[in-house]
Amino acid sequence: STYDLVEPLHPADIADLFELLERDDRRELAGAITDLMSGEVVAELNDYVREDMLEDLPPEAVAEIVGQLDTDDAVQLIEDLDEGDQRAILAEVEAGDRAVIETALAYPEETAGRLMQRELIAVPDSMTVGDLIDYLRSEEGLTTEFWEVFVVDHRFHPLGTCQLSWILRTPRSVKITDVMKRDQTLIPVEMDQEEVALRFQKYALISAAVVDENGRLVGQLTVDDIVHIISEEAGEDTLLLSGAGEGDINEPLRDAYSARVRWLVANLGTAVVASAIIAYFGAAIEQLVALAVLMPIVASIGGNAGTQTMAVTVRAIAMNQLTKSNTSRLVLRELKVALMNGATIAVLIGLATALIFSPQLGAVIAVAMVINIIVSGMAGVLVPVTFERLDQDPAVASSVFVTMITDSMGFFAFLGLAVASGLVSM
Amino acid sequence: STYDLVEPLHPADIADLFELLERDDRRELAGAITDLMSGEVVAELNDYVREDMLEDLPPEAVAEIVGQLDTDDAVQLIEDLDEGDQRAILAEVEAGDRAVIETALAYPEETAGRLMQRELIAVPDSMTVGDLIDYLRSEEGLTTEFWEVFVVDHRFHPLGTCQLSWILRTPRSVKITDVMKRDQTLIPVEMDQEEVALRFQKYALISAAVVDENGRLVGQLTVDDIVHIISEEAGEDTLLLSGAGEGDINEPLRDAYSARVRWLVANLGTAVVASAIIAYFGAAIEQLVALAVLMPIVASIGGNAGTQTMAVTVRAIAMNQLTKSNTSRLVLRELKVALMNGATIAVLIGLATALIFSPQLGAVIAVAMVINIIVSGMAGVLVPVTFERLDQDPAVASSVFVTMITDSMGFFAFLGLAVASGLVSM
Ligand SMILES: [Mg+2]
Ligand SMILES: [Mg+2]
Ligand SMILES: [Mg+2]
Ligand SMILES: [Mg+2]
Ligand SMILES: [Mg+2]
Ligand SMILES: [Mg+2]
Ligand SMILES: [Mg+2]
Ligand SMILES: [Mg+2]
Ligand SMILES: [Mg+2]
Ligand SMILES: [Mg+2]
Ligand SMILES: [Mg+2]
Ligand SMILES: [Mg+2]
Ligand SMILES: [Mg+2]
Repeated sequence: STYDLVEPLHPADIADLFELLERDDRRELAGAITDLMSGEVVAELNDYVREDMLEDLPPEAVAEIVGQLDTDDAVQLIEDLDEGDQRAILAEVEAGDRAVIETALAYPEETAGRLMQRELIAVPDSMTVGDLIDYLRSEEGLTTEFWEVFVVDHRFHPLGTCQLSWILRTPRSVKITDVMKRDQTLIPVEMDQEEVALRFQKYALISAAVVDENGRLVGQLTVDDIVHIISEEAGEDTLLLSGAGEGDINEPLRDAYSARVRWLVANLGTAVVASAIIAYFGAAIEQLVALAVLMPIVASIGGNAGTQTMAVTVRAIAMNQLTKSNTSRLVLRELKVALMNGATIAVLIGLATALIFSPQLGAVIAVAMVINIIVSGMAGVLVPVTFERLDQDPAVASSVFVTMITDSMGFFAFLGLAVASGLVSM
Repeated sequence: STYDLVEPLHPADIADLFELLERDDRRELAGAITDLMSGEVVAELNDYVREDMLEDLPPEAVAEIVGQLDTDDAVQLIEDLDEGDQRAILAEVEAGDRAVIETALAYPEETAGRLMQRELIAVPDSMTVGDLIDYLRSEEGLTTEFWEVFVVDHRFHPLGTCQLSWILRTPRSVKITDVMKRDQTLIPVEMDQEEVALRFQKYALISAAVVDENGRLVGQLTVDDIVHIISEEAGEDTLLLSGAGEGDINEPLRDAYSARVRWLVANLGTAVVASAIIAYFGAAIEQLVALAVLMPIVASIGGNAGTQTMAVTVRAIAMNQLTKSNTSRLVLRELKVALMNGATIAVLIGLATALIFSPQLGAVIAVAMVINIIVSGMAGVLVPVTFERLDQDPAVASSVFVTMITDSMGFFAFLGLAVASGLVSM
């Protein structure tokens, strides 16, 4: 039966199975394996799929799933539902869990306060290694999933952190303050998840203490959750740069349409600007139709060169590799690459055009190509850097501006040089 | 002094400092803080920057750094150097480390065997929790950085894995086999790093046992290294899709040029195809120059629509979300989005063209736009899916093909419809 096939699977694999199915088949599967539908399976589901499936369930059933989860997973499950559903579910959740979830929801989305889990091990600095082990063995209510022990003072301010491996390699009599590392990375509740992810990567963290405005330990973040953020943040730049919003293949049709059409409309605006430039040179094109044949080449290669530079720049910004101190170095480097690329492409297209059309047209397209690749390369760096300085996400809107510059400049340089060189008149 | 300023910094921050400096300044800084230049700092350096700095050092100095590192970091440091340098350095490395590094280098790049560290804790299944703790406390040579203990049989085959938190919460007398989890994720030595990264994400792993062809435990992978791979793999798709190779802002100029120019040349080829289509309709353009003015709009919007779909598809493939069983669902979904996008843009551009030029030209561009957005949307899914089925990286070459299709179709549909509708003759 279906049940026997699904039973041995890991919760993450059961979740994947749901994602592969069509909507109606999901309902059927959920019905066939009700007692395998643990909180863990639900927590592993893709956001869109989970939202869709939770809508079918009564609030009590969702509240029961919430009760099985760590607070971070519970919050993630609830945060995307609309307010009415949230309230109905929270009313059914046990009071202690409810208070914790409501506190987390009060922090902005994608901040440490929203992402952290409350379950953690914190101990006073008076303990020895032996005391700590005895405490961990005897206390019933403690979480069993933790990678570090946080040492705190009487005001619950973190003093240091102890990897479990250090504890296990140290004799019982040693004081915990002699084992712990004092300079730990503390994460403020209001820190953005992107910055959190960079800290985890940079300092090779497995878990980290989250502290509130008063410096008190209020939760922890663990790397198994941060890996999803790293992947999401890096992957979303690919999507954003293409103008596809942030959605994956499970995003509802209507959301995908509205995320994408707005960039197509914006692109229509920039394409109209490029068209206006062509229209301005209409008389020249009527004299020499070869101009109409060749002009998209200049724009297309310029567009590609700009996209290359933009991708490198956006990635460098996302990885915190680009700061005020090395931006001018990057600009200079990209200028050099553009000159080399421009020269190579100019020779190729210039020779071909000279052979097929005329040497003069070959010279015009060669020079136009060099100009456009340089302008595009510079736009590819400067547009995202400018957005970053204005505190805007450089991945979101850079493409539209870079495309506008590369298209317009491509047509303008080529047609303008054709006129300026006397090849055609206006 | 410089030394006092740098001294309190974390090795990862010292590495970042080097990356921000120009080449000559790096040498100066390295000279000023020689005894802070630990193996850890060198391991944290960007690949390109490290290679550049290591070239200046004598083999004995590099060998000394190698000796300070875990085997995985040592291999990463050596693998990018050329063979002569590798041999010179390995000759200076202590024999035990050398054998381990040479074994790792024998595995292909970007596989688990190349990435794993040899340092790990493995214990026989006969131990109790108390035995294990005594062993960890008394054995001098053991690593102090580990997150799990691997339980093995007499042939060194993994039987299960124990999180340290479970050990710490369990009485001494309990058998280790009663604490360990039996169904652990084993990573074969030859597994590609992309697949390894997906497993770590999916199963929320902190560390994992690596096994050789005979199923013997030969090393472990830890999540602090895997986060770099997750970030690298997700980020490289952004770069690859743009035709910018895989390099970051530290890539040497010559490498950046050669990675990028090949895609510009390829793009030149596809642009020539589009030009040939325009040339074929040369007579039509001479009759109505408005065609030349408007044709880039159709191509540009189609290009953007194709890029959107391609980004979504490439991301889904990278995340293992797209399989044979749901590809047709994605195609259908993208067809629907394309119809909605196509209708929206067609109305906008059709009306504007009707007002500025003529109703007939408005109708032609509207229909051409719908056709091109649908074709582009389908190309954006099918091109990467085809590359994936042919076992080629869909992020590498999809852009060139999609661009060729969207440009050519854009010009062909628009100019062809203008002729077919009798607006112009050929
Ligand atoms: Mg999944
Ligand atoms: Mg609970
Ligand atoms: Mg969410
Ligand atoms: Mg968690
Ligand atoms: Mg984000
Ligand atoms: Mg971002
Ligand atoms: Mg760094
Ligand atoms: Mg060593
Ligand atoms: Mg490497
Ligand atoms: Mg790979
Ligand atoms: Mg390591
Ligand atoms: Mg790769
Ligand atoms: Mg890849």
